[in-house]
Amino acid sequence: MPSLTQRLLAEAVGTAFLLMAVVGSGIAAQRLSPGDIGLQLFENAVATAFALTALIWAFGPVSGAHFNPAVTLADVVLQRRPIREGAAYVGAQVAGGIAGAILANLMFALPPVAWSSTARGGYGQLIGEVVATLGLLSVIFLIPRRRGVVIAPAVGAYIGAAYFFTSSTAFANPAVTIAKMFSDTFAGIYPASAPAFIAMQLVGAGLAIGLVWALRGRR
Amino acid sequence: MPSLTQRLLAEAVGTAFLLMAVVGSGIAAQRLSPGDIGLQLFENAVATAFALTALIWAFGPVSGAHFNPAVTLADVVLQRRPIREGAAYVGAQVAGGIAGAILANLMFALPPVAWSSTARGGYGQLIGEVVATLGLLSVIFLIPRRRGVVIAPAVGAYIGAAYFFTSSTAFANPAVTIAKMFSDTFAGIYPASAPAFIAMQLVGAGLAIGLVWALRGRR
Amino acid sequence: MPSLTQRLLAEAVGTAFLLMAVVGSGIAAQRLSPGDIGLQLFENAVATAFALTALIWAFGPVSGAHFNPAVTLADVVLQRRPIREGAAYVGAQVAGGIAGAILANLMFALPPVAWSSTARGGYGQLIGEVVATLGLLSVIFLIPRRRGVVIAPAVGAYIGAAYFFTSSTAFANPAVTIAKMFSDTFAGIYPASAPAFIAMQLVGAGLAIGLVWALRGRR
Amino acid sequence: MPSLTQRLLAEAVGTAFLLMAVVGSGIAAQRLSPGDIGLQLFENAVATAFALTALIWAFGPVSGAHFNPAVTLADVVLQRRPIREGAAYVGAQVAGGIAGAILANLMFALPPVAWSSTARGGYGQLIGEVVATLGLLSVIFLIPRRRGVVIAPAVGAYIGAAYFFTSSTAFANPAVTIAKMFSDTFAGIYPASAPAFIAMQLVGAGLAIGLVWALRGRR
Repeated sequence: MPSLTQRLLAEAVGTAFLLMAVVGSGIAAQRLSPGDIGLQLFENAVATAFALTALIWAFGPVSGAHFNPAVTLADVVLQRRPIREGAAYVGAQVAGGIAGAILANLMFALPPVAWSSTARGGYGQLIGEVVATLGLLSVIFLIPRRRGVVIAPAVGAYIGAAYFFTSSTAFANPAVTIAKMFSDTFAGIYPASAPAFIAMQLVGAGLAIGLVWALRGRR
Repeated sequence: MPSLTQRLLAEAVGTAFLLMAVVGSGIAAQRLSPGDIGLQLFENAVATAFALTALIWAFGPVSGAHFNPAVTLADVVLQRRPIREGAAYVGAQVAGGIAGAILANLMFALPPVAWSSTARGGYGQLIGEVVATLGLLSVIFLIPRRRGVVIAPAVGAYIGAAYFFTSSTAFANPAVTIAKMFSDTFAGIYPASAPAFIAMQLVGAGLAIGLVWALRGRR
Repeated sequence: MPSLTQRLLAEAVGTAFLLMAVVGSGIAAQRLSPGDIGLQLFENAVATAFALTALIWAFGPVSGAHFNPAVTLADVVLQRRPIREGAAYVGAQVAGGIAGAILANLMFALPPVAWSSTARGGYGQLIGEVVATLGLLSVIFLIPRRRGVVIAPAVGAYIGAAYFFTSSTAFANPAVTIAKMFSDTFAGIYPASAPAFIAMQLVGAGLAIGLVWALRGRR
Repeated sequence: MPSLTQRLLAEAVGTAFLLMAVVGSGIAAQRLSPGDIGLQLFENAVATAFALTALIWAFGPVSGAHFNPAVTLADVVLQRRPIREGAAYVGAQVAGGIAGAILANLMFALPPVAWSSTARGGYGQLIGEVVATLGLLSVIFLIPRRRGVVIAPAVGAYIGAAYFFTSSTAFANPAVTIAKMFSDTFAGIYPASAPAFIAMQLVGAGLAIGLVWALRGRR
């Protein structure tokens, strides 16, 4: 069993790579496919799906590869993990995510930090975040442990799909939402739009906890 | 073993997510890639393939993750499941599918219900539905139980391919056909076109049952 | 163990679906993405990769899911299967493949048979067919039996890639080559171009047999 | 256990196929999707991801399927493999890679060798190579041996994503870097740009070794 320090390092590094994948492929897509936002989102979605799959396979055996405070919250409730440990996980995810967004900016020779100006919101996108997070957490917590190896491609595939099928492009992750404020690019989010997104993600997480209890019982 | 109520809930929620994936990604593709119907269908197909894979991995251990009355029908015949249970499954699938189509409309800020005006038919597309359903059910019922974990990516991959290789874009599912009447978008179907599609899906299901018997024997 | 009749039926039906996937998605791509041959090949390649993966998972436990006389030839040599059985497999594959091409034409409301007018050849494409077949058979026969479940996605992924990385779009399969003569569409091949393609596929098969012997020994 | 000769042959042939996949699909993408560099990179990335997955599944049981001197270097350090054997692996990879680039040129009827004129560099791309190699080696060496079968799709998915999310299109491999000098096409690299790329890959490899030690301990 890895130590808590090792697990927090895994969460931080893994979330940094996730943000590099999300923001970096967004920047590349925007530059390489100008004027074709459908193709941009397609490239961004496939790159994110592929990266998530690989990262969860790699970091999962160390820390569980949450990379997402909503997942950690549900883990605390559903698996009865200590809340103190969950709080440390969230800290590592947010710090790692911001570092990843900054590294993505640097890789593409942009200023390390530029506040995003991409406003997001409206009732459709807010429903989208509830749906996206409900689906993500259902996928993660309904897959039985004996099949734990498929959580990685399941999460990658789900998020790749949800980029398209939710109107909000499926942030579904408060750490991603915070980190994306730090990049004024395709995948960014205007800071004032972030709180409502995060609130909806928590609503989705609550619904997912209820659904998992309903389908599996409260063991 | 989950209770019947739990299994029906899984079928309803899973089919709702499937319809959100199919209809939602269709709306997104239509908006983001206007005028490029090839790219629209590509985005729609990949999003559906990815979502189906994740959803079957998640809900399969609860209910079998049929999400499809044609699959349930074949399951009743091939696995000798009680017909009464099959009927309940179909009800859950249709109700869940309609709810999913409505949620997809809401996520994209469209009226919750708008009857589709997309006429579909002609002998080519009708053959397409027979072929699509025959192939789908063959894939599901020929994979041996000891390899049950690969049914999810097999079904996702098959449907993703069949969007392109059948002329009908492979509905292959009566619940999907009914629910798609409720969305006047890229992926919709004009209600008057639906009965012939469903009839052809049942023909395909009958052929698949015969093929599975021929290849495995009637155990 | 399935009977020979069952295995031949599986080879015929499976190869028919493979050809429907290859030719059908080629027709759809050509119609939906006119004037963009890169996108057409991308759609065609991904649909073929996905379909192959699903079909091998489904029909593999019955017949081995060769769908390809070059694979059956190598199987006869490498696994010491009876040559008479190999010949029957090849007959089933060719018949099934032609039926699949005709069904693809019918699904898209084209004449059931139209000789292809797509000339293919030149030293580059002939090297392409040698390389494509060498790689395909190496992938199939180097994967150890205890990991047999990954042959399906390995073959799907390999062929999806080889559509792009070989200049010939990787027929790599005499039954596919013959059947594609029957469709005057994107994926077709002019009959006079076929014999050289098939000869190069057999050269690739011979090289693959030598490589497998060199890497694993002649058990 | 395969002999050293067999393993070196596997490394050479596997790396040759990897380069054919990378360079060949780059040439095809460039020809088929002229003027759309986003779609070109998308086709190139997906073809490479698919090919890598299939090749690692096939050649992994023989040689470990490194195909990459940075992987072999980390393997020598982390798994305490003999350094002499590592040096032989690197020789086989470089020779095989160059042969693969030449074969790709020949398949597309280009001169067998043409020095690339594609200059690459700048601090952003150099950070990109560090990040790309760090992530690649982390994925490979963090996945536990009992799950070794998923290394193939994890590496394929990671590299497919990194084509987009690193600004350098993720060479992440000194043998690939050297071989790409031999093709004056989409995926090539101007020889004078190569040393800095390789140096950054070694920095990334060093960081990966440190991260793996930190997360798993120095067993």
